[in-house]
Amino acid sequence: MRKKANPVRITGAYEKKVAQLSTLMALSTILNSTLEQKEVRKRAIEAATRLTESEVGSLLLVDEETNELFFEVALGEKGEKVKEIRLKMGEGIAGWVAKTGESVIIDDVQNDPRFFKGADKKSSFVTRNMMCVPVKSEGKVIGVLQSINKLKGGRFTNDDLEGFISLADQVAIAIEKSRLYQELRDTFFCAAEALADAIEKRDPYTGGHTKRVLQYSVAIGKYLDLKESELERLRLAAVLHDIGKIGIEDSILRKRDKLNPDEYEKVKQHPVWGAEIMGHIKQLKDVIPGMRYHHERMDGNGYPDHLRDNQIPIIAKIISVADTFDAITTERPYQESLSIDVAFKELRGSAGTQFDSRVVEAFLKAYEAGDINADNVKVGLL
Amino acid sequence: MRKKANPVRITGAYEKKVAQLSTLMALSTILNSTLEQKEVRKRAIEAATRLTESEVGSLLLVDEETNELFFEVALGEKGEKVKEIRLKMGEGIAGWVAKTGESVIIDDVQNDPRFFKGADKKSSFVTRNMMCVPVKSEGKVIGVLQSINKLKGGRFTNDDLEGFISLADQVAIAIEKSRLYQELRDTFFCAAEALADAIEKRDPYTGGHTKRVLQYSVAIGKYLDLKESELERLRLAAVLHDIGKIGIEDSILRKRDKLNPDEYEKVKQHPVWGAEIMGHIKQLKDVIPGMRYHHERMDGNGYPDHLRDNQIPIIAKIISVADTFDAITTERPYQESLSIDVAFKELRGSAGTQFDSRVVEAFLKAYEAGDINADNVKVGLL
Repeated sequence: MRKKANPVRITGAYEKKVAQLSTLMALSTILNSTLEQKEVRKRAIEAATRLTESEVGSLLLVDEETNELFFEVALGEKGEKVKEIRLKMGEGIAGWVAKTGESVIIDDVQNDPRFFKGADKKSSFVTRNMMCVPVKSEGKVIGVLQSINKLKGGRFTNDDLEGFISLADQVAIAIEKSRLYQELRDTFFCAAEALADAIEKRDPYTGGHTKRVLQYSVAIGKYLDLKESELERLRLAAVLHDIGKIGIEDSILRKRDKLNPDEYEKVKQHPVWGAEIMGHIKQLKDVIPGMRYHHERMDGNGYPDHLRDNQIPIIAKIISVADTFDAITTERPYQESLSIDVAFKELRGSAGTQFDSRVVEAFLKAYEAGDINADNVKVGLL
Repeated sequence: MRKKANPVRITGAYEKKVAQLSTLMALSTILNSTLEQKEVRKRAIEAATRLTESEVGSLLLVDEETNELFFEVALGEKGEKVKEIRLKMGEGIAGWVAKTGESVIIDDVQNDPRFFKGADKKSSFVTRNMMCVPVKSEGKVIGVLQSINKLKGGRFTNDDLEGFISLADQVAIAIEKSRLYQELRDTFFCAAEALADAIEKRDPYTGGHTKRVLQYSVAIGKYLDLKESELERLRLAAVLHDIGKIGIEDSILRKRDKLNPDEYEKVKQHPVWGAEIMGHIKQLKDVIPGMRYHHERMDGNGYPDHLRDNQIPIIAKIISVADTFDAITTERPYQESLSIDVAFKELRGSAGTQFDSRVVEAFLKAYEAGDINADNVKVGLL
């Protein structure tokens, strides 16, 4: 083996490199273990500060439509203000990095002519020094990763930069994959919505019903502190809740007069048919109850299974309230649309018997907060 | 700084570690840059051999239903034979690793009592030594990664094992994410299929039509060397090709007699309506032409847009042949089902005018190869 000039110093350098690579490996694992966009972006920022030992990290992404950079996640209250900032390509240090595709260490940010002071101003933060690297996917800049203010008053080194560039590669991969996943999820949801919409259109009296029930359901869900995964299921169940109507003949669906008992029995089958249509898809097993049970009642007098109280899953209870509110406030063949006041009275009056009181309460809260967008609905006339 | 006993040797060790970590990092990047299951699995095996410098790598996955291990990918012709092997939990070295969750280096595999000789026998390969580590996701063993025969007659070291365990962590993440993606894709496809099926059921004369058109289309696609992504679009377009029928009234859809010209015009709108239902979903922009143009003809006499020749996208041409074959061979209100011979004659006779000749040819090839499963179809009676 060739003798090294200063083995102790070289050992130190290798030791540092091993430490950096190990940290990088660990951060990359964390970054790559999720497909949720928000989570990926948050983890990218945390990784940036940890790997480079700095005060703050930030991630800006390219908005392809406007060709601007926006701060995707910025942690804390100050971060929220920073999120309003948008940089044009070439504007600020991040804009310069995005435009040129080059990485940069800046020791004295305040005196750099490229520095955009807006972010500091908004967040009452003082940027001392900075490392800034492009996040590239297949050669194209999709964002910029920043590490700001080396801890303990230090400066960023070329070793820091080398590690940071490697991290940016990992961030790019994680971002692209989470985007692909989200795109597929959106496509699925939109296709389901489009088909549900087409099915709904057979019934000339329910134009836009599915969309409104979706919107109301999500608004209620927020006030019941549902988890993200439950909200996701709620959304899908709300969109699909009436697809079973595909099994009802035109002659019943379009009848203007009151339905006879036989016809009404057929209509009452739609939650069962809807659940059956999707029944064999095991990934939807937690969505289907939202479809099947959205006409159940707390007192057991609903259909099709006469469930009661907590036998009825929360997403079905939510859709039930949303569905009823929309039915009251829009025109139907057998009834004029009634006012929102009437709807409120009915929801309140049936809390505990037809509806879960907590859900009605959440609905009223959501309405007061302006989250129930009943634009197409007649207001205030009793 | 504390004096090291033998700085040169330590430097060597750190140098090796840096090299290992850098390779690991690079392999992890490759592994994590795809969400395709097959690709992830192939890359995992390549990474195993490269990182540990061995002759062969293999990946076994746990089949949750049977609790067996199977060789997921094995490269080359010999590999194909190995793929038939299934190990019970505890069986063979891989089975032992899966059962205990422990990692192992075995210097003399042939004399290890756990060794399952089946794989060597099938592949006429001689396993000398081996490293075998569990692939764990959230504490649960989902597979086993093997590295077989250290190159140049060497042995696997504990350093090798350490790197291999890190690689297994990356493999676990990549496998789980690609599984999640595939699951979402399957859910989307199954939901689209279920809805299309429900829409189809309104027409009592077309039971199972969509499923058969899907099956025939995919079979044809194989003989036209479509890329994986095109096959994916073809599958979706085939499933959705008739959803526009949701816009046709019961009275027309269920009419037993011949349709009058007005009614026929309405029926002919279904490709347009189908395309419109999905029209706003930009991710489906390459699927929609398969829906809209499946009644176009090569000679320009089709509908709705009177496209001709290469104006008609290949997936629409394929669905057209599949659709026609099914229409001829199944019973319709206005016609008895005809024999496969008649169908062949009609397809051949209309090649070049109605159908693209290459597509008809691919259909006939697929049929001869047994890929067109026309089980429900009357055969051979002219």
